[in-house]
Amino acid sequence: MTIDEYFLGIDIGGTKMLTALVDAQGRVLAKDQQPTLAAEGEHEVIRRLIDMIEALLSSVPNLQARSIQSLGIATAGILDMSTGTIVLSTNLGWRNVALGPILERRFGVPVRLINDASAAALGEWLVGAGKGTEDCVYVTVSTGIGGGVISGGRMLLGASNNAAEIGHISIDRNGPVCKCGNRGCVEVYAAGNSIARQAAEELRAGKLQTPLLADLAGQDPEKVTAKLVAEAASSGDPYSVSLLQKAGEALGVAMVTIIHLFNPEVIIFGGGVSQSGDVLFEPMRRTIQELGIEGMVKDVLITRSSLGVEAGAIGAALVWKYVNQADKENSLEN
Amino acid sequence: MTIDEYFLGIDIGGTKMLTALVDAQGRVLAKDQQPTLAAEGEHEVIRRLIDMIEALLSSVPNLQARSIQSLGIATAGILDMSTGTIVLSTNLGWRNVALGPILERRFGVPVRLINDASAAALGEWLVGAGKGTEDCVYVTVSTGIGGGVISGGRMLLGASNNAAEIGHISIDRNGPVCKCGNRGCVEVYAAGNSIARQAAEELRAGKLQTPLLADLAGQDPEKVTAKLVAEAASSGDPYSVSLLQKAGEALGVAMVTIIHLFNPEVIIFGGGVSQSGDVLFEPMRRTIQELGIEGMVKDVLITRSSLGVEAGAIGAALVWKYVNQADKENSLEN
Repeated sequence: MTIDEYFLGIDIGGTKMLTALVDAQGRVLAKDQQPTLAAEGEHEVIRRLIDMIEALLSSVPNLQARSIQSLGIATAGILDMSTGTIVLSTNLGWRNVALGPILERRFGVPVRLINDASAAALGEWLVGAGKGTEDCVYVTVSTGIGGGVISGGRMLLGASNNAAEIGHISIDRNGPVCKCGNRGCVEVYAAGNSIARQAAEELRAGKLQTPLLADLAGQDPEKVTAKLVAEAASSGDPYSVSLLQKAGEALGVAMVTIIHLFNPEVIIFGGGVSQSGDVLFEPMRRTIQELGIEGMVKDVLITRSSLGVEAGAIGAALVWKYVNQADKENSLEN
Repeated sequence: MTIDEYFLGIDIGGTKMLTALVDAQGRVLAKDQQPTLAAEGEHEVIRRLIDMIEALLSSVPNLQARSIQSLGIATAGILDMSTGTIVLSTNLGWRNVALGPILERRFGVPVRLINDASAAALGEWLVGAGKGTEDCVYVTVSTGIGGGVISGGRMLLGASNNAAEIGHISIDRNGPVCKCGNRGCVEVYAAGNSIARQAAEELRAGKLQTPLLADLAGQDPEKVTAKLVAEAASSGDPYSVSLLQKAGEALGVAMVTIIHLFNPEVIIFGGGVSQSGDVLFEPMRRTIQELGIEGMVKDVLITRSSLGVEAGAIGAALVWKYVNQADKENSLEN
């Protein structure tokens, strides 16, 4: 590993695109963030993405284009990693977009797709809050809930690269139906759009006893977001506090299952809803301590993402480095 | 790997001890099974265990004692793998028994402890129903529920070797308290002692509407076992059928969480209760198909153990072979 190796990562989300240029140690040399503007269509989005990458590369003095080892792309949806194709992205409205080959031709480097939550998990594990651990779980609590699991120093992928659907752990078999078809998934109780939906329903029904949240949303149920609920909670709004506490308890129940199955050293939380702070985390920690097997929960560190919104782009940048290393190990098995 | 390498495995359970001598391909050359008679105390049990091993070795013509590469011991309880000590075994009534060093001195080969459910998972994966897969979950439904997970061709161990506590997946946060302290663990609904306890309570309360199960148990609630419930069910006893169906549904709910987290190719069932057959498995399969994410459940093979009661002893025998291979791979990481 020489000092001249650089890795480029991109995280294409429904609202913003992030790029990060990192070295082999995961240090970020340059980064950028732009709105995705998915409504402009795939050709326009990809054109702007290419501009972003070029601007990023030229922002680093003395960087040779050939110093880039590889390019990793993190995004949500159904991905065909073997062909570099985004098969279906509901966030972007894309179907069968062969982004991998397009960027390979443009930049002359190998390109690899990775699920966005897996990328963030990889980033946090390799160079973020999970650095140096072997058993590390990353949970993103955002619009939905997702994540990634590292066990024994390896990322869990599963038979069809779909492992770690953490949002779809059922915590109550008699609970409400989730959009995945299961009942009582933790996402139904603790994801951002679930928190917003519950608060909006209260407002619509005229049941909000305290005015703060309604005021923040301008009395419009459509304008209620999980972020506004967190804001209202931090100002002491009792309904908003109780909503986030309930979300925290639900997360805690799911984390007990995570701990019982993966026996991790650390669980790292990222995503917008996890910015809500102690109002969410305290009930979660208490629930974990109450319900988990003592010997397994007592040593688990519960912490926040240290890479923040850039976790996905940084993890995408490092995916090649990780995959090459894993391939070297696997070659011994044969 | 030469044809002369043999591996010895022992599975020490609360009721019986099993031994297996296998070659590098996992073929069983010799095996034995004896009652544990734990009440006789650790010295007597270990003496008989040593006799068993010696008898096993001498039963194979032309086998040199020095052809044994290693000895693996599968058992339940809290194990200190670094010192080969059984720290606490409630099944055996043992506390701080340094069985590893005792057998190392006696047989002159390295000895390694392994959790019994992990050993069975390893055996089924390497040479049983999971052979050739990379993502394989083993579930034992016996007195309790346990298991082991292989992901990406590696056994999941976790930070303190406690991963895969499959029996303690909560399926209902409002469910009954489990002895682990959690609520609604799948073990509370589907383990053998839970099935027996429920049936015994019905009998004790005089609520059994049909006489078959009561007759099999000689009208004695203390004599009701999960095995008798399965027998009664196979003869059509409606209460016993419904009890096993409910257990199967509960298992199905837990398996959906397993599938969402591990994305396995195959789930293998072992343990006494899984002998109950379709009355248990059909409701489980139906529940998995109903509740699981379609793309993740449709390709999962649900199957039975192919090594049966010997899975633990065979897996214990092969643990050294597996560990040495994993060590070789890990050495590349450094």
